[in-house]
Amino acid sequence: MRKQKIIITGAGLAGSLLAVYMAKQGFLVDIYERRPDMREEQLDGGRSINLALSIRGIHALQEVGLAETVLAESIPMKGRMMHPVEGDLIYQPYGIREDEAIRSTSRGGLNRQLMDAADEYDSVNIYFNRRCTGVDFRSGEIQFLDEKTGENSIVSSDAIIACDGSASAVRMDMQKVGRFNLSQMYLAHGYKELTIPSSPGGGFLIEKEALHIWPRGEYMLIALPNLDGSFTCTLFFPFEGENSFSSLNSPDRIHAFFASQFPDTIALIPDLQTDFLENPTGKLVTIRCSPWHVGGKALLLGDAAHAIVPFYGQGMNCAFEDCTVLNQMIDSFGDDWETVFAEFSRSRKPNADAIAQLALDNFIEMRDSVADPKFLMKKKLERLLETTFPGEFLSTYSRVTFHRSPYSEALARGRVQDQILMDICQSVDSIEKLDLRQVLSKLKEGF
Amino acid sequence: MRKQKIIITGAGLAGSLLAVYMAKQGFLVDIYERRPDMREEQLDGGRSINLALSIRGIHALQEVGLAETVLAESIPMKGRMMHPVEGDLIYQPYGIREDEAIRSTSRGGLNRQLMDAADEYDSVNIYFNRRCTGVDFRSGEIQFLDEKTGENSIVSSDAIIACDGSASAVRMDMQKVGRFNLSQMYLAHGYKELTIPSSPGGGFLIEKEALHIWPRGEYMLIALPNLDGSFTCTLFFPFEGENSFSSLNSPDRIHAFFASQFPDTIALIPDLQTDFLENPTGKLVTIRCSPWHVGGKALLLGDAAHAIVPFYGQGMNCAFEDCTVLNQMIDSFGDDWETVFAEFSRSRKPNADAIAQLALDNFIEMRDSVADPKFLMKKKLERLLETTFPGEFLSTYSRVTFHRSPYSEALARGRVQDQILMDICQSVDSIEKLDLRQVLSKLKEGF
Repeated sequence: MRKQKIIITGAGLAGSLLAVYMAKQGFLVDIYERRPDMREEQLDGGRSINLALSIRGIHALQEVGLAETVLAESIPMKGRMMHPVEGDLIYQPYGIREDEAIRSTSRGGLNRQLMDAADEYDSVNIYFNRRCTGVDFRSGEIQFLDEKTGENSIVSSDAIIACDGSASAVRMDMQKVGRFNLSQMYLAHGYKELTIPSSPGGGFLIEKEALHIWPRGEYMLIALPNLDGSFTCTLFFPFEGENSFSSLNSPDRIHAFFASQFPDTIALIPDLQTDFLENPTGKLVTIRCSPWHVGGKALLLGDAAHAIVPFYGQGMNCAFEDCTVLNQMIDSFGDDWETVFAEFSRSRKPNADAIAQLALDNFIEMRDSVADPKFLMKKKLERLLETTFPGEFLSTYSRVTFHRSPYSEALARGRVQDQILMDICQSVDSIEKLDLRQVLSKLKEGF
Repeated sequence: MRKQKIIITGAGLAGSLLAVYMAKQGFLVDIYERRPDMREEQLDGGRSINLALSIRGIHALQEVGLAETVLAESIPMKGRMMHPVEGDLIYQPYGIREDEAIRSTSRGGLNRQLMDAADEYDSVNIYFNRRCTGVDFRSGEIQFLDEKTGENSIVSSDAIIACDGSASAVRMDMQKVGRFNLSQMYLAHGYKELTIPSSPGGGFLIEKEALHIWPRGEYMLIALPNLDGSFTCTLFFPFEGENSFSSLNSPDRIHAFFASQFPDTIALIPDLQTDFLENPTGKLVTIRCSPWHVGGKALLLGDAAHAIVPFYGQGMNCAFEDCTVLNQMIDSFGDDWETVFAEFSRSRKPNADAIAQLALDNFIEMRDSVADPKFLMKKKLERLLETTFPGEFLSTYSRVTFHRSPYSEALARGRVQDQILMDICQSVDSIEKLDLRQVLSKLKEGF
């Protein structure tokens, strides 16, 4: 029997992982990537270079046999370390079990590992420097411009799966076809990458196994550890306004602002001013669209279908879970692509919408609520409930990060639960006074 | 002093009217229209050929001295005539004064009148068959392909104003620049045009001065009168499902469906099956985006900025009001385009968002609620309040259609007012039992 050929656009995290899944399913896979081979050239200096890998991503890597290798090159972050402007650091553990940590992982490193894994299959080919310049959704033909040679080629396949990210070229073409619903919403905040280098001896200058946050209301700084002892910091900051990327436009202003708002970083970030002025300012977009597929010809997956803001650390995890679900659909419906794509969309769209909302909500929580005493009390109460009633209570964070129940469930249950817990915390001055069993029944009544 | 040159993309209703406004302001205006000159060639058979002109549109036409000519070729529609499946027609007047009618106007006829009016200015040039193929928002240069000769040209101007409709090419290019927020949402309903011809003697086969509605819950048919005695009917109908464009796919099915659901139309629409099968099925989209402008280089106006569904009859009226407001901004800020465009957007965006919502809400009202006795009671009560307390009470419909207060006010006040009135109607079995003065004070408390 003829082997079906799948074209994947984009050799990023989702595209490379999906290629492995598809090769395992016995398909021929051609990946077309717009950029040069990142394994040969240095790319993307100054842009989001580490990620928090959690259960959904890890599960997908396990399915294709890559989890062990990837986790070996990651650092567990067991909790949030909050840096107030003044006073002591505040630590909040993320989970209740030793293995309930999120994993700081290098985006570039992981992408290379996934490409290598895909390359190991004879049935997978990766073509680089190929820009998608048009899709014919009737024939399933797709056109690429080779940006090195300037040559155009038209390739055909049994199905196209677009993993070409939030600015997906395939989605742009879908926009011209039929009734394509699209929403792309940018935050008024952008982000800038900064670096805390390792100590002269190669050690970590701040707590290694934590995600560091400097919450400041309208903006925040975070830092994730790297294997070499350094931390990648990201400042989430308004584009315009009094304190903004447009107002912090000189070395002096940058220094003065960090000295007053993030005083402990002055000693930690030696290249602050240079990096701030020279690194690009990233944009933060939420993309929602439907349908995700054109018949059985083309499907959007990962950021191309549902780009989200990074505040729940779920962008990659969600894209990897997309691969898991698509793989299940192929197990069920084989190469009946129209059914596979339709069922994938039906099952996945509510979850993509839910994590998009959770990620937006978490921006408020991270930059603002973590500095609110009642919020800290609620976090403590959640932890107490989780340890006292394991299996009976889960915080929304745990549900999203350490469990694989649908995002839509985490959002729906989370809204009710978070409201009840906040109400309880508002009514007492210390959680020691609470009858935990009573709190649990209140929560159960809530559903 | 050098005269500033404005490029307008699109010679549709908004573009042609705006050209007249801009010529009156003393600017040089070049309009680039993708299609051939509609005054020379027959276009657009089978697509939405009449419109309901109301106060906002009429006001703009008055400002440029065209109202009298346009109104002379329109038919006043003084109320809604509802056609139930069985039983007598139900008539609801729209306004309380003789002049409170909406005006059925031929889209093509009005467009030609506006183009002619623009052409009368030496400072206005209209170029046809020119497809916009790219905008450089830094230089303000815009590229057009002459679809007759195949030649490309790049033209520069002091400012570009995009009036190129819901599929705006200029907006597509804005999407690639900066942080452009966009939402395009299609209804699951499409529309199909059908025709009730005039009587053999040239008369009107149904009431001339009314907007006819056949409300049927999940779908509806409407008809607007034309000067020649015919009516243009539009069926708003689901694309998919039991009763849908995809299921009504044979002459027999179409006939059977109309005979059971719209029995009085069988005698009125002789070419039903042919027109149904041959006329294109239109799509219904709501477009929301921001920002509407790139600095002082380019601005979106009308449908290009805020396409809405047709159920409040406000698409053209809103676009014409855009022209009125832009003209006011030029009166205030001259040719400081960055300020003009920014202030226009600031003032107009909340109103565009409001009428988009009102139009979506009115779809439900037109197809569904007009068949609900409580809704009919509420309409009667509104009319009674408007006639009893002129100047003190306005229905939402009147506020949108016969007054020029901001759409955002109509939406905000309307939501409160409609809820109070519905609650009152639910509590009584006849409006004769109500103390109107008391109803009025309840409404005033509501705000």
